[in-house]
Amino acid sequence: MEILRNIYAEDLEDIAIGGAILGTGGGGDPYIGKLMAQQAIRKHGPVKLIDVDQLADDALVVPVCMMGAPTVMTEKLPQGDELMNAFRALENFLGRKIDAVLCGEAGGVNSTTPFVVAAASGMPLVDGDGMGRAYPELQMVTFTMHGVSATPMVLCDDKGNSLVLETVSNAWTERLARAATVEMGGSALLAFYPMSGAVAKKAAVRGTLSLCSRLGRTLRETRAAHGDPVRAIADMLDAQIIFHGRVKDIDRRTVGGFARGSARFDGVEEWKGHSFRLDFQNEFLMAERDGKLLVTTPDLITLLEAESGNPVTADSLRYGLRLVALTFPSDPQWLTPAGIDLVGPRYFGYDVEYLPFSRNCGGHEKVS
Amino acid sequence: MEILRNIYAEDLEDIAIGGAILGTGGGGDPYIGKLMAQQAIRKHGPVKLIDVDQLADDALVVPVCMMGAPTVMTEKLPQGDELMNAFRALENFLGRKIDAVLCGEAGGVNSTTPFVVAAASGMPLVDGDGMGRAYPELQMVTFTMHGVSATPMVLCDDKGNSLVLETVSNAWTERLARAATVEMGGSALLAFYPMSGAVAKKAAVRGTLSLCSRLGRTLRETRAAHGDPVRAIADMLDAQIIFHGRVKDIDRRTVGGFARGSARFDGVEEWKGHSFRLDFQNEFLMAERDGKLLVTTPDLITLLEAESGNPVTADSLRYGLRLVALTFPSDPQWLTPAGIDLVGPRYFGYDVEYLPFSRNCGGHEKVS
Repeated sequence: MEILRNIYAEDLEDIAIGGAILGTGGGGDPYIGKLMAQQAIRKHGPVKLIDVDQLADDALVVPVCMMGAPTVMTEKLPQGDELMNAFRALENFLGRKIDAVLCGEAGGVNSTTPFVVAAASGMPLVDGDGMGRAYPELQMVTFTMHGVSATPMVLCDDKGNSLVLETVSNAWTERLARAATVEMGGSALLAFYPMSGAVAKKAAVRGTLSLCSRLGRTLRETRAAHGDPVRAIADMLDAQIIFHGRVKDIDRRTVGGFARGSARFDGVEEWKGHSFRLDFQNEFLMAERDGKLLVTTPDLITLLEAESGNPVTADSLRYGLRLVALTFPSDPQWLTPAGIDLVGPRYFGYDVEYLPFSRNCGGHEKVS
Repeated sequence: MEILRNIYAEDLEDIAIGGAILGTGGGGDPYIGKLMAQQAIRKHGPVKLIDVDQLADDALVVPVCMMGAPTVMTEKLPQGDELMNAFRALENFLGRKIDAVLCGEAGGVNSTTPFVVAAASGMPLVDGDGMGRAYPELQMVTFTMHGVSATPMVLCDDKGNSLVLETVSNAWTERLARAATVEMGGSALLAFYPMSGAVAKKAAVRGTLSLCSRLGRTLRETRAAHGDPVRAIADMLDAQIIFHGRVKDIDRRTVGGFARGSARFDGVEEWKGHSFRLDFQNEFLMAERDGKLLVTTPDLITLLEAESGNPVTADSLRYGLRLVALTFPSDPQWLTPAGIDLVGPRYFGYDVEYLPFSRNCGGHEKVS
């Protein structure tokens, strides 16, 4: 098997930053996942990152994730062992050795959690994921659109409790896993969507872990060279800068295991006199400028600190922060009717259609 | 293996009535369980009832139960298949054939649900249970006091979803199973507490299914002979009649999957001028007469219709019903410190000690 590259503990710094950019404000604090992954790699050795095409068609591939409200995760640092417990329990249940680890969600904490399992198990990690970003519910993966069942799935907590779920739909898996996660204290570890190599090749969003790594490196190197980190990230992602402003107010609450709310911004510099609003359910899902809807899920909306280019989560939004909003198109799989059904604005309760990215944002980089 | 007796579909009539008496107001509507069991027996043949001493020490014995708020169960008639699904899924998970079925709770609907599995599987059913009555939470079984883990446990719903739980304590099993049951619509089917024959011999409350059968038969025969059914039941159970009155008011609500509340009664005949109050959490847990606490959990409190002797559940209490309250002592296992910790008044949030039955009720059969 050809290895793309070996991932060492220090490489996780870039990957975690890139994961926070693709996290679109949600997906949990990448700092936690980074620490877990670094600890596992220092103990067990580097992770072998492979292209999805390196998988045998009959290989058994299993994604891993943390589940829960990001605000809770930051208070409950999980041990790497729990992820391995979920993984091994699923292996036992399936009665078959797993051949490779996959990333469920290449955004936020879950861009790094698969490295824990890959390091501890010695298994290769596939360079790709099931979202190309972060999303709040577990059925919101490209795997669902390819008919892959989330179950058999194992869900573990930090106390030693575990569940094996077998359900009639991925939406039911989300409901039952969410209820268990809330009961377990707000976060849990999952091994789910067991699939063949053949299916992974069709379903996975490719290259997202490498993309995370490149994004983190670009940010780091641009800062070291006293360049413009926001511009460098926008260029790399082919993203549009849709606002530059200060946080004016934030409305945030935790509902049913989700961090929901909205944030409003007053423009500065080229956007002075303009207003901007983001709605989030863990992730930033909708952006409005001067009262007009501009971007909707599944396209990605990311906030970067104006000076440092560091990504900012919905959790860490504070009054007065000066931020730049970027948007860039989602993986094309999300733009199919099935994709829009799973993660479009209506699923999240917004009474609008998906706004195709190019129509709204193609010519809006600067209006002043 | 020596069989105590074969149980035919028509025998379930008596068992269900007896189960409602031991249900102490809770445990769900025995009518549902009776229909399920009768259907299974008509399809698969009679159930072989055996004494627990007939089990080999290394036999694998598994109790089955329905979980949920009785008020919901009566609206959601489960199919027998779901219980078999739970049972077979546990067998698969354990990788071993189960040798006998046990009753988890010989009160209410769960006095009859094990007959469904015993009939459909052809396995013998042990004459005994884990409570000698009904209780609202799944860790409240004598098995817990013998160190038996509730897990591995399988929980199924009527839609085809199932969970295998493995937990660090039976209290955690209750929490996680309760959350799943609520999410599944309020009721679910369980196969849990897998144990050896040797443990079942020590832990089970013996003979409770036969007792249910005798209680139902006594009620039926006494009525046919125009005798006093309430007196006949009291004599059979060595119970004390602690009140005779009419329902004056009922306070009832469904909280976290439980039917909680209280009912107050005005005395009639020999109890005229006296008042009576019952507190329930699915089951009747506390009885007060003339403002003085008289009986507490784990001793059993049952309401019978004054004329017919039919047992009455907390759910079916209605203004004006004329009822007789009986009390009788619990299985001695519940009166140990460990038993009182699990099911005594303080566990249920009442700030009182357990009142030993004989001290309060021995000489109170009639005060007028």
